[in-house]
Amino acid sequence: METVVSGIRPTGNLHLGNYFGAVKGFLQMQNEYNCLFFIADWHSLTTHPHPENIRNSVRTILSEYLACGIDPEKATIYVQSDVPEVVELYLYLNMNAGIGELMRTASFKDKARQQLHIDRVHTSEGDVEREIFNEGNKHSVSAGLLTYPTLMAADIIIHKAVKVPVGKDQEQNMEMARRFARRFNMTYGVDFFPEPASFYYSHKAVKVPGLDGSGKMGKSEGNAIYLIDDEKTIKKKVMKAVTDAGPTEPNSVKPEPIANLFTMMEIVSSKDTYDYFNEKYNNCEIRYGDMKKQLAEDINNFCAPIRERILDIRSNEEFMAKVVRQGAEKARESAAKTLNEVRQIIGFRPY
Amino acid sequence: METVVSGIRPTGNLHLGNYFGAVKGFLQMQNEYNCLFFIADWHSLTTHPHPENIRNSVRTILSEYLACGIDPEKATIYVQSDVPEVVELYLYLNMNAGIGELMRTASFKDKARQQLHIDRVHTSEGDVEREIFNEGNKHSVSAGLLTYPTLMAADIIIHKAVKVPVGKDQEQNMEMARRFARRFNMTYGVDFFPEPASFYYSHKAVKVPGLDGSGKMGKSEGNAIYLIDDEKTIKKKVMKAVTDAGPTEPNSVKPEPIANLFTMMEIVSSKDTYDYFNEKYNNCEIRYGDMKKQLAEDINNFCAPIRERILDIRSNEEFMAKVVRQGAEKARESAAKTLNEVRQIIGFRPY
Repeated sequence: METVVSGIRPTGNLHLGNYFGAVKGFLQMQNEYNCLFFIADWHSLTTHPHPENIRNSVRTILSEYLACGIDPEKATIYVQSDVPEVVELYLYLNMNAGIGELMRTASFKDKARQQLHIDRVHTSEGDVEREIFNEGNKHSVSAGLLTYPTLMAADIIIHKAVKVPVGKDQEQNMEMARRFARRFNMTYGVDFFPEPASFYYSHKAVKVPGLDGSGKMGKSEGNAIYLIDDEKTIKKKVMKAVTDAGPTEPNSVKPEPIANLFTMMEIVSSKDTYDYFNEKYNNCEIRYGDMKKQLAEDINNFCAPIRERILDIRSNEEFMAKVVRQGAEKARESAAKTLNEVRQIIGFRPY
Repeated sequence: METVVSGIRPTGNLHLGNYFGAVKGFLQMQNEYNCLFFIADWHSLTTHPHPENIRNSVRTILSEYLACGIDPEKATIYVQSDVPEVVELYLYLNMNAGIGELMRTASFKDKARQQLHIDRVHTSEGDVEREIFNEGNKHSVSAGLLTYPTLMAADIIIHKAVKVPVGKDQEQNMEMARRFARRFNMTYGVDFFPEPASFYYSHKAVKVPGLDGSGKMGKSEGNAIYLIDDEKTIKKKVMKAVTDAGPTEPNSVKPEPIANLFTMMEIVSSKDTYDYFNEKYNNCEIRYGDMKKQLAEDINNFCAPIRERILDIRSNEEFMAKVVRQGAEKARESAAKTLNEVRQIIGFRPY
């Protein structure tokens, strides 16, 4: 069975966009692949070296993934910092990763600009490099951020994963992971690490729109409906969705805000419900208030059982602890096996 | 008892310069401090990512330190790569270490120039930075070399060492270690890591001269007499020592090559022997051949028992394995204690 690794950032609650864009894919993958999903608590230090409450963030995301249906008997779900083998591989990869190539990645430059307080618009080529070396700049960019791609590569190749489900924004980091795997093989004259392929589960992923007129649902967009939101909160959010005065001619093309409402309905409601409101729209008889009420109800019907499971899981500390322990055990076994071989290859042999 | 940490690079055999310049100090320190001496096999990857035979180098240096008198019952002697806790602290320190400050250290620039094949003489300020970013340069500088100071700081502060015996060339890296310790304390609002002080054991250290005319004894100078050298080799090396035509006036000032011979004699021979040849020199009756023969004999007398112990220890694999295991155990206990507290401070708590 092919091995799939995917990292989960512990940055808040899951929303419908996460669910249909990623989690649902994970639920299918866990049946088809040897899946390892890890909560990337170390990675979050690259941008937040002083985390608010990292343990709580881990707890939150873990309970929500489990509630969605990630099955610890099928997939290995673990916390990154429970697998110290990863950092040792990270050290070895750093020895063969060039500073220049690391600094040339787009995601490094983006985050470095933020940390250096450089305005993206008003600067030119080489601004990041210049400011990193500017002793006068009171902001600095950390070696941790620079080596984000080596840590990410270590996370993946320590399990000899061949596929990694990623978004397009991670493509460059995936290219780096492949390069580091290849370079390790070349440096030590072995055929050891497979090159992990980016894995677009896109035929199954659905892009969930925001309900604020345009764009997709996202935490940073401030338009997210969270799986943990209660009925009242969901209703309030849906009722605030942007609409218009309604169509004046039959079978009009739907403007984006309206199309988004319908897309959402397509995702969570029954076909009958969708067809009903679609017909109303085409007949110019649509009452958005009714539609939203129905949509809110259907979203709640979708979220309610997950929400209950989240609360259930969170109240069961023993279960969560067991999942974390089991995951760590399985992940460490896989990681230790690779690391032992890596040590042999480099030349570190146990006494 | 104050904690002292010192790293040993596994780069070949110990010579007389190492013995009188460093090891002898260690022998005294182990009675006065809680000493941890580690063989820095990870560090050697920063300049040699593809080590020849790292296990053998570790074995060599370990047996020689033990033969000199490092006592595993008094001091903790361990192999760096046996203490994976260090790499996790290294990761945390990287999160708060600026790329700019790391690149500004002199030792980084020196080694980076070598790796980039930049001629030191013919280049200007900023040459290292420019070439690191020059995509056209087929040589690159690794993130491992950049983060050498964070790994070194982790090695030291993981044992909460307060003193580190170092040479002057390590002063800047020690300054970094203090800075990273301080920064950790400030970032997380704790008073946790002591700032390790540089520790010049200089009143006890002796600078051993080379016998090739000028300068000090050193492996890279190619003028070293190794503790493991046999009688014949020692004699051959000493007989080749640079001399001159001899003094023509009584009580002449000794030129450097001759002064070096006498310094060496002062270190290894008896006072009588030294005085005898000194008088001969002052009377213009010196016969360098006789002096060298005597010096070779005295060097051999000094080295012979150490040499025997080295061979003895090397033939006792069981003993060496036990020392390494015991050292690893003690070092890991100390390191794990610190790391657990570090995790608590940052916010990683075990489930």
